[in-house]
Amino acid sequence: MRLTTVDDISTAERRIAGRVVRTPLLSCRRLGDPLRLDLAVKAENLQHTGSFKVRGALNALLARVERQGAPAGLTAFSAGNHAAAVAFAGRAFGLPTVVCMPPHAVPTKVETVRRYGGEVVLTDDLVGTCQALAAERGYHLLHPFDDPDVIAGQATVGREILADGPPPELVLVPVGGGGLISGVASALRAAAPGTRVVGVEPVTANALGHALRTGGDALAARPVSIADGLAAPFAGRHTLAHARALVDEMVEVSEEDIRAAWWELLDATKLLVEPSAAVTLAALRAGLVDAGPGTRTVLVLSGGNVSPATLASLA
Amino acid sequence: MRLTTVDDISTAERRIAGRVVRTPLLSCRRLGDPLRLDLAVKAENLQHTGSFKVRGALNALLARVERQGAPAGLTAFSAGNHAAAVAFAGRAFGLPTVVCMPPHAVPTKVETVRRYGGEVVLTDDLVGTCQALAAERGYHLLHPFDDPDVIAGQATVGREILADGPPPELVLVPVGGGGLISGVASALRAAAPGTRVVGVEPVTANALGHALRTGGDALAARPVSIADGLAAPFAGRHTLAHARALVDEMVEVSEEDIRAAWWELLDATKLLVEPSAAVTLAALRAGLVDAGPGTRTVLVLSGGNVSPATLASLA
Repeated sequence: MRLTTVDDISTAERRIAGRVVRTPLLSCRRLGDPLRLDLAVKAENLQHTGSFKVRGALNALLARVERQGAPAGLTAFSAGNHAAAVAFAGRAFGLPTVVCMPPHAVPTKVETVRRYGGEVVLTDDLVGTCQALAAERGYHLLHPFDDPDVIAGQATVGREILADGPPPELVLVPVGGGGLISGVASALRAAAPGTRVVGVEPVTANALGHALRTGGDALAARPVSIADGLAAPFAGRHTLAHARALVDEMVEVSEEDIRAAWWELLDATKLLVEPSAAVTLAALRAGLVDAGPGTRTVLVLSGGNVSPATLASLA
Repeated sequence: MRLTTVDDISTAERRIAGRVVRTPLLSCRRLGDPLRLDLAVKAENLQHTGSFKVRGALNALLARVERQGAPAGLTAFSAGNHAAAVAFAGRAFGLPTVVCMPPHAVPTKVETVRRYGGEVVLTDDLVGTCQALAAERGYHLLHPFDDPDVIAGQATVGREILADGPPPELVLVPVGGGGLISGVASALRAAAPGTRVVGVEPVTANALGHALRTGGDALAARPVSIADGLAAPFAGRHTLAHARALVDEMVEVSEEDIRAAWWELLDATKLLVEPSAAVTLAALRAGLVDAGPGTRTVLVLSGGNVSPATLASLA
């Protein structure tokens, strides 16, 4: 399987420039000091639509337009953030969008899709319904993670981290289907091969870790976690290949540790992140990642879309 | 009464440079578009200790050190954010700090004072207890707002707003004792006399508005508001003089409107602010401030210290 190259990432960077927020890398002593780490957070919760997903969606759409012209419309399946990203991309190019989301999707994420003009179909058969819609309407299906162009788009997060200071020694990335970590690891491996890249999953939603251990199997049951954005039932072929080649370590965190880390992030940084984005701090707090004193560490805060009910349950 | 001058503000800026966070001015279309305003927020919730108060406290301490040498220690009375700022300033200069806070102070704010090494005395007689402590221990009392050096420190917020783009046409500032608006209005009046400065108070905690209407009276009863940081029982002589001379308008918002605005700010900006900081958006949403389409508007997000219980009640 071909992995993402430096050229792929440079092309993605050029394509999406000006269409995405150049998010800040914020140093945070209040989080780092107790862990004895030199810690910073990459605030992708401040990205358009409230998550990194617009990077991959825009790059994949622009790549498709370059190669085959504009499609009649866009479709996608997603628990939420990718759906909003596709609606955002569709609106930017005047394309109709229909996304399939699970009936239990976070209401805030459903509203976000609609705010960007996307049509929402709530269904348990995400993939099947989405493929049927794509065929019926002649729409282009943008995969949430298992697409080289999506991975190259997410890799721009890694490029920006490298542009904002000396290369970190350790980067922790939340893992759902694996698109973000595949991209970030590609960008770091190319420019800073010494950087350790660690993926973090909920114990109860560990599709990529499970696939790595079993040689590619999907999870037996539908994953459930407060980190709703990470509840992918399977990893992709592309993301699995990237993880095998480029990810140094995978760790798993408990629901309780995610909740505690979420509050600490909010309290210390004053940034609203979604529970999915708190898994990395949870892993550090639980001592799951070895790192010597002063290790230059970056946590990727993947998104910030939380509904009022979730917020109340976390506070 | 002598008002804050351009020189006072420049001196404050020089004194506190490098000791405070140069906070970002963040444009926010999602908040501005529905109001038909060109809207940005000044994110003082990202300031050290989670509020703008460190600016005034540091400037007042440094001014005192310049004029009379270092004091034996620091004392202050405050509902919370000024207390944390004084503890922060004390720690920076190796000075012991004792602060008087009300028994109903937000627990997060009490913890923040202790995190910076400050001693906390919970008392209903804030001013009396604090003055007694200052006399007993020979500590310097840093007033939360009614001090020209504190006002000049807060004025640096206005300077930074002006440095980050064309002068805004409208600036909305949360008002408690009036230190922040006195400073911000001083900075703006000097450099951008056309900018309208509007102060916003809770209906239930309107000490400055009341003093302006009555010629200086304190409130009859202890003010109570979800915006705990604005519940000053009286305005100061200095802040009243500044407000009379420099503030264009004062408006008052309901508790319900503060709650709704708080959620919208969190959801749209992904920034955690305290309810006190949401009063400005509440005023705009309630139609209390006239502003034509496209008005360049800045909301000062004064702080971000919220306890879990408050957060749960707001979500």
